Order: sequence, then structure tokens, then C-alpha cells
Amino acid sequence: MRPSGRAPDQLRNIIMEPGYAKNAEGSCFIKCGDTHVLCTASIEERVPPFLRNTGKGWVTAEYGMLPRSTGSRMGREAARGKQQGRTVEIQRLIGRSLRALVNFEGFGERQITVDCDVIQADGGTRTASITGAYVALYQAFEKLVEQGKILEIPMKGQVAAVSCGIYKGAPVLDLDYPEDSNAQADANFVLTSEGQIIEIQGTAEEDPFSEAEFGSLFTLAKKGVKELCALQRQALGI
Amino acid sequence: MRPSGRAPDQLRNIIMEPGYAKNAEGSCFIKCGDTHVLCTASIEERVPPFLRNTGKGWVTAEYGMLPRSTGSRMGREAARGKQQGRTVEIQRLIGRSLRALVNFEGFGERQITVDCDVIQADGGTRTASITGAYVALYQAFEKLVEQGKILEIPMKGQVAAVSCGIYKGAPVLDLDYPEDSNAQADANFVLTSEGQIIEIQGTAEEDPFSEAEFGSLFTLAKKGVKELCALQRQALGI
Amino acid sequence: MRPSGRAPDQLRNIIMEPGYAKNAEGSCFIKCGDTHVLCTASIEERVPPFLRNTGKGWVTAEYGMLPRSTGSRMGREAARGKQQGRTVEIQRLIGRSLRALVNFEGFGERQITVDCDVIQADGGTRTASITGAYVALYQAFEKLVEQGKILEIPMKGQVAAVSCGIYKGAPVLDLDYPEDSNAQADANFVLTSEGQIIEIQGTAEEDPFSEAEFGSLFTLAKKGVKELCALQRQALGI
Amino acid sequence: MRPSGRAPDQLRNIIMEPGYAKNAEGSCFIKCGDTHVLCTASIEERVPPFLRNTGKGWVTAEYGMLPRSTGSRMGREAARGKQQGRTVEIQRLIGRSLRALVNFEGFGERQITVDCDVIQADGGTRTASITGAYVALYQAFEKLVEQGKILEIPMKGQVAAVSCGIYKGAPVLDLDYPEDSNAQADANFVLTSEGQIIEIQGTAEEDPFSEAEFGSLFTLAKKGVKELCALQRQALGI
Amino acid sequence: MRPSGRAPDQLRNIIMEPGYAKNAEGSCFIKCGDTHVLCTASIEERVPPFLRNTGKGWVTAEYGMLPRSTGSRMGREAARGKQQGRTVEIQRLIGRSLRALVNFEGFGERQITVDCDVIQADGGTRTASITGAYVALYQAFEKLVEQGKILEIPMKGQVAAVSCGIYKGAPVLDLDYPEDSNAQADANFVLTSEGQIIEIQGTAEEDPFSEAEFGSLFTLAKKGVKELCALQRQALGI
Amino acid sequence: MRPSGRAPDQLRNIIMEPGYAKNAEGSCFIKCGDTHVLCTASIEERVPPFLRNTGKGWVTAEYGMLPRSTGSRMGREAARGKQQGRTVEIQRLIGRSLRALVNFEGFGERQITVDCDVIQADGGTRTASITGAYVALYQAFEKLVEQGKILEIPMKGQVAAVSCGIYKGAPVLDLDYPEDSNAQADANFVLTSEGQIIEIQGTAEEDPFSEAEFGSLFTLAKKGVKELCALQRQALGI
Repeated sequence: MRPSGRAPDQLRNIIMEPGYAKNAEGSCFIKCGDTHVLCTASIEERVPPFLRNTGKGWVTAEYGMLPRSTGSRMGREAARGKQQGRTVEIQRLIGRSLRALVNFEGFGERQITVDCDVIQADGGTRTASITGAYVALYQAFEKLVEQGKILEIPMKGQVAAVSCGIYKGAPVLDLDYPEDSNAQADANFVLTSEGQIIEIQGTAEEDPFSEAEFGSLFTLAKKGVKELCALQRQALGI
Repeated sequence: MRPSGRAPDQLRNIIMEPGYAKNAEGSCFIKCGDTHVLCTASIEERVPPFLRNTGKGWVTAEYGMLPRSTGSRMGREAARGKQQGRTVEIQRLIGRSLRALVNFEGFGERQITVDCDVIQADGGTRTASITGAYVALYQAFEKLVEQGKILEIPMKGQVAAVSCGIYKGAPVLDLDYPEDSNAQADANFVLTSEGQIIEIQGTAEEDPFSEAEFGSLFTLAKKGVKELCALQRQALGI
Repeated sequence: MRPSGRAPDQLRNIIMEPGYAKNAEGSCFIKCGDTHVLCTASIEERVPPFLRNTGKGWVTAEYGMLPRSTGSRMGREAARGKQQGRTVEIQRLIGRSLRALVNFEGFGERQITVDCDVIQADGGTRTASITGAYVALYQAFEKLVEQGKILEIPMKGQVAAVSCGIYKGAPVLDLDYPEDSNAQADANFVLTSEGQIIEIQGTAEEDPFSEAEFGSLFTLAKKGVKELCALQRQALGI
Repeated sequence: MRPSGRAPDQLRNIIMEPGYAKNAEGSCFIKCGDTHVLCTASIEERVPPFLRNTGKGWVTAEYGMLPRSTGSRMGREAARGKQQGRTVEIQRLIGRSLRALVNFEGFGERQITVDCDVIQADGGTRTASITGAYVALYQAFEKLVEQGKILEIPMKGQVAAVSCGIYKGAPVLDLDYPEDSNAQADANFVLTSEGQIIEIQGTAEEDPFSEAEFGSLFTLAKKGVKELCALQRQALGI
Repeated sequence: MRPSGRAPDQLRNIIMEPGYAKNAEGSCFIKCGDTHVLCTASIEERVPPFLRNTGKGWVTAEYGMLPRSTGSRMGREAARGKQQGRTVEIQRLIGRSLRALVNFEGFGERQITVDCDVIQADGGTRTASITGAYVALYQAFEKLVEQGKILEIPMKGQVAAVSCGIYKGAPVLDLDYPEDSNAQADANFVLTSEGQIIEIQGTAEEDPFSEAEFGSLFTLAKKGVKELCALQRQALGI
Repeated sequence: MRPSGRAPDQLRNIIMEPGYAKNAEGSCFIKCGDTHVLCTASIEERVPPFLRNTGKGWVTAEYGMLPRSTGSRMGREAARGKQQGRTVEIQRLIGRSLRALVNFEGFGERQITVDCDVIQADGGTRTASITGAYVALYQAFEKLVEQGKILEIPMKGQVAAVSCGIYKGAPVLDLDYPEDSNAQADANFVLTSEGQIIEIQGTAEEDPFSEAEFGSLFTLAKKGVKELCALQRQALGI
């Protein structure tokens, strides 16, 4: 039995509010149960030095947590003058996940920065960030289309992410914090709407686990991502 | 005429949602028009070194803005490894404003950190932070009372803050961003519900201004703070 | 009775030595009783990026304290790799106070940096810094005039600053350290020679204070700034 | 055809020199073709604060690259005052990989830090680091046994790591730099000698890839890790 | 001919003002021509961790330059968040020079920090710092004697420092900035009043120089240090 | 008797392996007994801003120690976000020592960075670094000659370095760690192959020492540097 009473292959209640942030070109406030992440996409008319005069654009991501998004207060990274290793790792993952589907020739020499800020945390913040970031980024591209700056959305596919884990011996979908902190193994799956792999990260928390167990997590993830992708399309009205 | 069509002595539409943050001991999501700030109060069972073994508690504050809370994206302070001067100045102001009314002998050797994070900015984020921070802090003290750890709320009064300024030659209450960025002078007033001064900061933006003009801003501020204090009490149900 | 035996409306003994620093374009070693601050103005033939090709100049300020300017040694900010919040706040105040009176069109694309370094501290270092900084800046402008680079001093007025406070229940002018550390309220007034407001910062140290008390501090400040401005003119020979 | 002429399932030439570092309690200079990493294990008689008085030990890892280990010189992280995101990510991975097999009750309140410093880089530095780190850590435990401080090696198994990727459409084992920089997908596998999963990280470099392709990489990895584990045992004489 | 018209073996005009800093336990404002350094000695009743419970004290030094002590303004180290290599090198030298003559058993578990802050620079700031630091440190020890905390000055000798160099082919004593910036070689000599060596640093600025040339610099230095030591004793009244 | 059994004027066993680092333009792995330093020279086709458009090149050096190169593990400088004072001092010394012999007009607007990384430390790492750095730099220049970019090696002479010290009352050459940590005085000599001085740094570790003692160290150093220079030429085949 899961603490939340969910079925093993059941996602948490997912709510996506696109356009939440009035000032950003694209945004999505995504709620996966009690995990709440505000994703904003900001377009800038410049690219990093290595892309100047190439005609190509760039997409990057940053991640942060409000100090009291968590059960006990974390020190504010800005005050400590340093992002934690975990933060850096997550924002690199979000960035790679988005870039895997973007056509960089398709939106000129512009940089889009997707900020994923965790307002409340209950497990799965990195996967919620990726799922919400896709919506925010899509909206930003829509804005460029509306403004006549580009002709079509420069993305080759759709991406969402979910975590799975082995909890009390059984594979379960979309870990919340009580599960995450007691899982024997967990894995984050970043997949396309067609089930192709963009990124997989699997980690044994206690003992090493088997290829078969990994396979069962993969199966759950494909189901979860498919559902998340449908919710993204619904939120975007596409 | 104000850009928003408000009367010179009219506050923006104010919404306070106490208890917004599930994990924090106290919280308030305050919306002053399009300026939205999430204030959380976190209790820790320890005090800074200079207070150890004194029987006294401490209250401090931190302030931050989400990178895309503003019209154009600001660099993330955590990524730059440094808080801006403006950030430091504001969080010191919030802390002083709260401490002016707290009875440090009244809640044991505990530290309460109030985090004010700007989710969306449209002028007046520091005064909104103070007004919301009072509610979050009050809630945290209520929690200690509920838990039987203290007998009464250790606060000597009630505090709220508002900005006033001279816009197109006329004194106006509660500047929004279009006003703030064009004001000839502006001042932030941190006052008690009885109109006593906790902190005043007045600055000439263009030319120096007169004592009489300053007086007219003060008059507006007293009206505004009185209304804000009523809204705080209503939000807290006290 | 004040610890120094001064009358309530009496400044400390003020000495200004313009031209103290041989290498700087302008300088003033200002002594307000035992508070000694060396202010230097440095002209550079470049402006910050946001002013390039605008024909305008810029004025900025930095503030520091020698580690043993104070009663007990403070850690050196350069060694700790970080300026304290108080430092940042003060140097921002000095910069704003000077900029309020400068005509930025009047001295070409040049930046003048005014450094205020506290050699010895006995209260009121920020107001002494502003008062001395005006003299240093004026001297730097004189140098540009002498060199034929500009035709006249590009300043719209004269500025000085002083702190006032409520000490043992009575309003007093120009707090020294023994007063400052025991004041019930204090306020820093940055005023023009004509008594107009450039910046006001008032803070309750113990209990909130009244508008009337604030008014009495203002009255003292106007008297003090008037005297300081006369001393500045005498030092500059204008 | 691979640039090196190796068969698709062929490791590079692997050399492990245990005991290379005279001063360290354990060490291994591992060469995987032209990728050379010096791994040292340092025992300290203290643990991080969260483990004090628990009777448990800790194992952690740090990673670095000499500035000119690579084709073009990288800035020295110590000089820039900051570890790169990639560095942090890798050292966290190495630490987790080792900890997965360590019995923390088995060596007292000691911390062992495994430093993995890349002397020369030609792809696969993180997997070479893990493989070498196991040997260094094992040696350090042997030292504690020799000194009579513990009775047996407190490890539950053996770990090695290897990267696999899809290069020119074909799955290949143990990517070198020319392959790594042109792979369509690559994955790092951290496995036990029995083929159980400790950590898997798979990333699409160009287009998303399929579950079947991922499976073929896994098969190669199991073969490679088995061979690496045999070489580790041979190096350690166990 | 030297730019200053001095004889080759002639020091600049030297002025030492002991007790310049009201707040410090010991101090000396030393002027070597236009090089002005304020040295303060601060006693703290604690020692660094490695000396706790050893009964021994410690002496350390820090060095800084005011941003406009020099011909063109230098960035403020506190603002850049980092001390320059040159700064670190100099403060380490000052510390070693003082420690060479201190009897650490002779003043209890106290740390004395000598701060050397350059108010105005015209060459030779590090040697002026050492010469002034000795006086400040001596005063601090005198204070401990006066307070009855120690019985005698815990120093084994007297130290001063001077730079010499080869300028236009001739060896000269006590380089000022115009000489220093054009010297072919220069050396800093930290010597006791009896001419023994505490530290020597010699550097070729253009071409390597000979042992004979080095010897002639040494001869000048001994003469200069002897005179400086006499001035120190005169300043201290010993 | 020296701990190593060496004669007072005997160097440690010296091994230089030029070309050790496959990726660098020049390199030398130098072993002085148990002190092992990898020196690499990296050519970049750019110069620091102050040399742009002057036609001149630049040579600089950086120094680092692997965390467990020493008897007990040192914190990693990259992780602490800061280079130690000692590190900065040493890399400045290496850079000056190389630059003293380089003809900056002779290799175009290029910067050569020599990295000296200590793999294992047993005293004398800075002098070993200088001796090895010369070989690495020479190789890098040879590469430019081979490539036809310059016609001849732009160096005016040959440089090596060695430490000497007074150990148990007697002057000895080339201190190893047991000697270095017990020397009464030590000095580092950076000399040309002809015995001219590039840099000398002498320090009293216990009591001040005499000019005569310094002279005896100098004599040893000249012998040692002469031998090191012969080994450099042999390694380079010149």
C-alpha cells in the first residue's frame, strides 16, 4: 500500500496552469500533488558567445527552491553565495531534456531561459520541472509565432518526465516524498510522447537492483509520461 | 490621473492568504495588485551565537525575487554567487521592522526566519513583504501557542508598510511600477497600527523635495497602513 | 546631559582637510569629533555600459572601514571575500546622495568614484562620509574645470548629512558612538544647503516613535546641515 | 569501424597501478587507453556532523581535472573559485557509487575521501574514476585491517563502471573521446561484479533513442564491467 | 642622480607617529616620504585552533591599500570579493617578519593582529609596513605589561625593513615609486637591528643580476635598517 | 648526517620526462626524489588585454597540489572556492622566474600558460616546478619553431631553481621534507645556468641568521643549479 493510497501505476493529481506569470513570455505553474513548481520561459535577443553569428538559438534552464518549500528550512543559496551540487545537477538535466527536442536553427539568435522554481516540495521536483518547462517553453515559442518572428514552433517532439521507484518491494509510479525517502531504488525517466528515451537516471538507494526491476520501472514510466503528455497538450490547447 | 485610475489615497486591491505554504509554521501569500509575495515563517530551535544562554529568541528575514518576477529577466542571485545590494538592504529593513515589535523574552531560545519571496513584481515589493511578513510571523507565534510552548503572542503591536510618492506633482498612495519608475520622490513608511514610526525611508528621485511634501506623503501613509492593518487582522481572524 | 557635554543642538568639532590625498583628483579628510573619514574622488575616462554613447557621466561611491577603526577589531571585508550588508547599504546611500545634485550631462562620459574610508569610528560615519564626499567630488569637478575639460561645476546644489536621535528622551544633534548605541530612535538626514530633502532614514531602536518626535529631529537636522554646508564652502574657498 | 580499430565490445587497454601514491592510505593510477586517472583514498579519524556519535563511518569522493589534461587548456577551477557543474555532478556520482557497497557500521567513525584526479583525458573519465576508486578504497580498508583497527573489509560487493554509446549507428563499449564527441547516445553504467545496477545514466545526444537500443548498451556494459572487475581483483591480488 | 635628489645611501624622510589610532592597543602611522601606512595592533583573548590549550600566543598580519592610495584607482578588494595575489604575499611576509622575533610563550593564549593599511603609496609599502608594524606590536605588548597581564615585552629583538635596488646601474637605498618602477633589480631586506637576516627577497626586473650586485644592495640595506631601528626606538621612547 | 644519507652538497635523484603529457604543447614530469611535479605548457593564440596589438607575447604560470600529494590530505582548493596564499605566492614566483628569460617580442601575440601540478610532495615543490617548467616551456617554443611560426627559441638563457637550508647547524643542498620542516633557515634560489640571480627568497625559520650563513647557502645553490641545468639540457637533447 502506498502512503497516499494511490494504485502502483497511478500519477498524483496533476494541475498545469499555463500563463501563470504575467511578465514572462511563457509560463506554467505545475502542481503534482503537493509538489508545486513555477516554470517561466524568458526570451532574450542574444545568444551565448559560442553561438554568435551562427544563426542558431539556445535554450537553457535554471532551478531553485524557495527556502521553506521543504519540510525544514534550507539555507538560501543566494545568501550562501553558492548553488548546491544537487541544484546544478538538476538544472543541467532540465536544460538537456529541453534541448534534445529543440530545433536550434528555427528561432534565430535568441536565448530562452526556463526558470523552474519550487514553491512547495513533496518529491519529484525535477521531473515536475521538466514537464512544466516544456509547457512554458512551448508558450514562449507560440509568442514568437504570434509576433511573426518565426513561422512555426521549432520543436521536434514533446517531452515529459516522471520518477518511478521500488517502494516496499514493489515498483510504483510518481514517487511522493514519503515514498522517495524510503525507496530502495528510484529512477527518473525523461521520455518523448512516443516513449523514446531522452534521459534516464537510475540509482540504487540501498542495495543494487536487477535489470528486471529496472525494466518494470521503465514500463511504469512510459505509462506515466504518456498521461503527462496528454495533460500538457490539453493545457496548451494543442 | 494615476495609470491605474485609482484615487490618490487609494490602495491597490489587497489579498492576503494566510497558511498558503503547507510546510511552514506560518505563511502569507500577499497580493497588492500585481505584486505577489510569498512570506513564510520558519521556527528553529536555536539562536545565533550572541544570544545563546540568554533565554531570548530572535527574528530575522530574507528576501528574494524569482528571476522572472520582473518585466525583463534578472540574473539569479544564487547563480551569480552573490546577493545584490538592493536585496541585502531590503531584507535588513524587513528584519528590523519585525524586530521592533517582538518581545524577545517571550518565546524562548528560538529563531524565526521570515522569507519573503517575490513571485511577481509590480512595485512596492518591500512594503508588501513587511505587511505579509507580519501575518506569517503572527501565525508562527500562534503555532507555538497552540503547541503549548508559549502562553501568548510575544508582540507589542502590529506593523504594516506602504510606499507613497510624488507622481506628476501630486502625492499618491501605494505606488505601482509605472508610478514608481516615474516618481519625483518616494518614501516607504513602516508604521504601527497606531501610526507610530518604526522606519521611514524617503528619497528624492529627481530634485530634492520639501518638508511639506514629505508631510503630505506621511499623511497618506498613515491612512494606508491603517487599512492594511485592518486587512491583516481580518486575514488572521483576530 | 550628553556624554560629551555638548548642547542638544551642537555639532561635534568638525575639521575638513581638502586635498589630503596627493594622488586623487579630489579629496577631503573629514573629522567629526573622533570620527575620521578619508574621502577621495577618482575620475576615470569611461562610464558603465548603460551610459556608453549617451554623452552622460556617472558618479558612484564606495565605503569601507579599516579593521581597527572601531572599538574591537572587525574582520577585514577583503579577507572574508564579501562586503557586509551594512557596507553595501551605506555606499548605496552615499552614491544616491551625490547623484541627486549632479548634472550628468555636464562632465562628459566620465565616471567619478568617491571612496569613503573610515580611519577611525565614533558614530555617524555614513553622514560624515556624505559631507566629506561632497567636498571631494567638488574638488574633482574643479580639476576638470582647471584642465579646461568642462566649463563649470556640474552640480545643482550643495549637500551635507547629519544624524539626529532621541537620547535619554531628548532630541539631540550629531550623535557620537555613546549616544548612538543608546538612542531610542535615530534618523539620518541628507539635505541640501537650502533644507530640501535628498534622503531621510529614520529608525526606531527600541519602541516606535511619534510623528512629533520625528519633527523635532528634522528641525535639529536642518540647523546642523546648514552649519556643515557653511564649513564645506569655507574648506573649498567658495 | 571504430577510430581505434577496436571491436564493438572491446575495452581499451586497461592498466591499474595500486599503491601509486606513496602518501595515501590507498591509491590506484588507472589508465584506460589514453585516459589516466589517479585515485587516492585518505582516511580521517572524524566524520561529518550528521554522523557524530552514531558509530558509523562515511565515504565521499572528489573529482578534478588537471588544466591541460584535455585537448585545449581548461581554466583551473581553484583559480576561478568555483567547481563547474560537470565536476560536481561527477564527484557526486562517484561518491554514491562507492557508498552503495560500503557497510558504514563496519569501520568506525572514520571518513574516507577518495580523490579522483584526471591526469590525462580521452573520454570516459568518470567511469575510469569509479573503477579506480574502488581499488583505492579497497586498499584503504586493507590498511585498516592490517593495522588491526577493523577485522574485515566492510564492503558488500565490487563495483566498476563503463560507458557505452551508439556510434555511427552501432552500439559500442568503452567510448574514447573521438567516439564520445560523436555518439548519438551514450550511457554510463555503474554495476556490481554480478551485473546488478548501482547507477545508470543514459542521455540522447542527438535524437531520442529507443528502449531496444538502450538494452543493447546494457548488454555491452555487463560484459565490460565483468572484465573490469576481474582486472580490479587481479590488481588487488584478491 | 636619483629623481628625489637623495644620495644613493639616503633614506627618505621618515616620520613615525605611535599611538595614532585611538581604538587600537598599539599603532603607528609611518610616513616614508610620500608612502603613508597606518599600522594597528589588536589584541584578542583567543588563539587559532592549532594553538588552543598550548599556553602559546600568536601574531598575524593583514595588509590592504585604500583604493586611491595609488596614482590610478585600484578596484576595492572587498568589492571584488577577493584579495589579490600581491596582497596575500605581502601580508604573509609581514606576519613572518614579526613572528621571527616574538616569544610565543611570553604573552599567554592571545592573538595579536597587526593591520597595515596603506593610506598613500609611493613605493616601498611592504617594507614601511614591517617597520611600522614592529612599533605597533611593541606598543600592544607594552599595554599588556601596563595592565599587569605579562611581565616583560616578549620579543627577542628588533626588526625593520627596507628595499634597495639597482637604478640606472647604481645601487640605491629605499626606492620610491619612480625608482621602483624603473629598477633593473630590487630586493627587500627584513633585518634585525643587529643586521641578522629575517627575510630577503631579491628579484631581477630586467636581466638577471650578479652576486656582487646583490652584495652591494645588502650593504645599503644594513645601513638603512640600522637607521630605521634607531627611529623606532626614538618613537617608542626606549 | 642528513636523513636521506646524502652529502651536504648532493641533490636528490632527479628524473625529467619531457613530453609526458600527450595533449600539451610542452611538458615535463619532473621527479626530485619523492617530489613529483607535472609541468605542462599550453599555447593560446591570444594575450591578456594589456598586450593586445603590441606584437608581444606573455608567459604565466599556475600551481596546484593534488589533495593527497601530501602526508595528510589537504582540502581541495577548487572545492573551497579559493586558492591559498601559499599557492598564489608560488605561482607568481614561477611566472616571474620564467618571464625573466623570455624575449616577449619573439613569439607573436601568444600566451603560454605553464601549469605545475604536484602529484606527490616531499619538499621543494616550488623549485622543482621552476626547473620542470623551463623544460615544458622550452618544448612549447620548439613546437612553434617546428610549425614554422617562429624562427628561434625566444629565450635569453636557462633557468633552474633549488632550495638550500641550514639543517642541524650545517648548510645543505636540496632540502627534502624531513629537512625542510626542521631547518633553521632556508632559501630558494632561482638562478641562470651562469649563476646569475633571477630571484632569491631567504627566510629564517627559527632565529635570524647571518650574512655568512646566507653566503654558504648561495654557494651550494650555484652548484645545484649548474647540475640541474645540465640535466635539463640532457632531457631536451640540446
